[in-house]
Amino acid sequence: MADGRLVIGTKMYSSWSLRGWLAVHLAGLNVEEVLIPLDGGRTNSVKDATPSGTVPYLEHQGAKVWESLAIVEYCAEFAPGLWPQDRVTRAAARSIASEMHAGFRALRQNMPMTILNSFPGQGATPEAMADIARIDAIWQDALAASGGPFLFGAEMGGADVMFAPVVCRFLTWRPAVSAASQSYMQAVRAHPLMQRWYAEAEREPKAWRLPHYEAPKA
Amino acid sequence: MADGRLVIGTKMYSSWSLRGWLAVHLAGLNVEEVLIPLDGGRTNSVKDATPSGTVPYLEHQGAKVWESLAIVEYCAEFAPGLWPQDRVTRAAARSIASEMHAGFRALRQNMPMTILNSFPGQGATPEAMADIARIDAIWQDALAASGGPFLFGAEMGGADVMFAPVVCRFLTWRPAVSAASQSYMQAVRAHPLMQRWYAEAEREPKAWRLPHYEAPKA
Repeated sequence: MADGRLVIGTKMYSSWSLRGWLAVHLAGLNVEEVLIPLDGGRTNSVKDATPSGTVPYLEHQGAKVWESLAIVEYCAEFAPGLWPQDRVTRAAARSIASEMHAGFRALRQNMPMTILNSFPGQGATPEAMADIARIDAIWQDALAASGGPFLFGAEMGGADVMFAPVVCRFLTWRPAVSAASQSYMQAVRAHPLMQRWYAEAEREPKAWRLPHYEAPKA
Repeated sequence: MADGRLVIGTKMYSSWSLRGWLAVHLAGLNVEEVLIPLDGGRTNSVKDATPSGTVPYLEHQGAKVWESLAIVEYCAEFAPGLWPQDRVTRAAARSIASEMHAGFRALRQNMPMTILNSFPGQGATPEAMADIARIDAIWQDALAASGGPFLFGAEMGGADVMFAPVVCRFLTWRPAVSAASQSYMQAVRAHPLMQRWYAEAEREPKAWRLPHYEAPKA
């Protein structure tokens, strides 16, 4: 029997859900997956299902946890390896995870996660490109310090979880980034959990597709 | 000698800075305060001073930490009492702290922190009022469970730190909130560190005042 449940949205589109899902699986929590197809706000199906009206939402051994970063912190209590062991490096990992949690709004608006699509060169507003330049710098700094292939070393951790949907966005929208960041994107994409997420997204019904995500903005 | 430094912006206006400053002081870190007057983006004085181009920014015993939530987590490693001791309650505290870190954009845009001013009833767009209703519900839930006077009990903690600038906003813009939330606002405002922040804001030079913050939006 499962210890709880993880509520997520459509795997094709729900970037925040991917974060909660990765954290829960990396930590090995035994939870049932409840997927609510996103419907572009047509109904309150997500809104009514979770305390904050958003996905991901985790119930586990009596705890109710929402917001992807809070889920990462919750999972890290069971799997401390999600954050670097060293205090100074852990502070760096949490800084960039928090920066991702609250920021990069132009990227998120102009280059949504839509992982079955390829829209190279589209969505590249000046504001989105400024966000991308900052992300590229963050990744390069972390990878140079750790040696990669993940941001803080050999294993996918909490910071990678927070940036994983950005990798998905970049694989669709293909903005120019450094060679180091390209290698990083390949490492993330090749991770077994990312392979599984993509495979499961591909199997989602066509009826779940939303026009908003299926073409770049005019 | 100090163990590092905390870079913040103008105390009248810098809501994020208040969070970092409260966390550092609640944890008793011994850091020098470096205040960069905000100038509405006229110069790059903040942008050039910190890794992410934002305040607050903490350097402490070799660690470089930015983003207020990451600073709270960093401080909680030195002062674990910043988060509730119980796993389930701690998950709730981190969920609402994360929700604050990334959300309530309409409130932030329409009711900026400007703690020397009083603009009762202004800024109350429907979107801002929806944010306020959610915050009121979050506060009431936490206070009912903990018994107050702070969100998770007798002492100001990490979740209170994240919401403290919202209290400042509400004291300026005076939206209608529940009696429980009003009592909570009084408790936060009366905390010795908040008393000190307000007193220091009052002593800031008039030359630091920015028109954007000195009148409600038309």
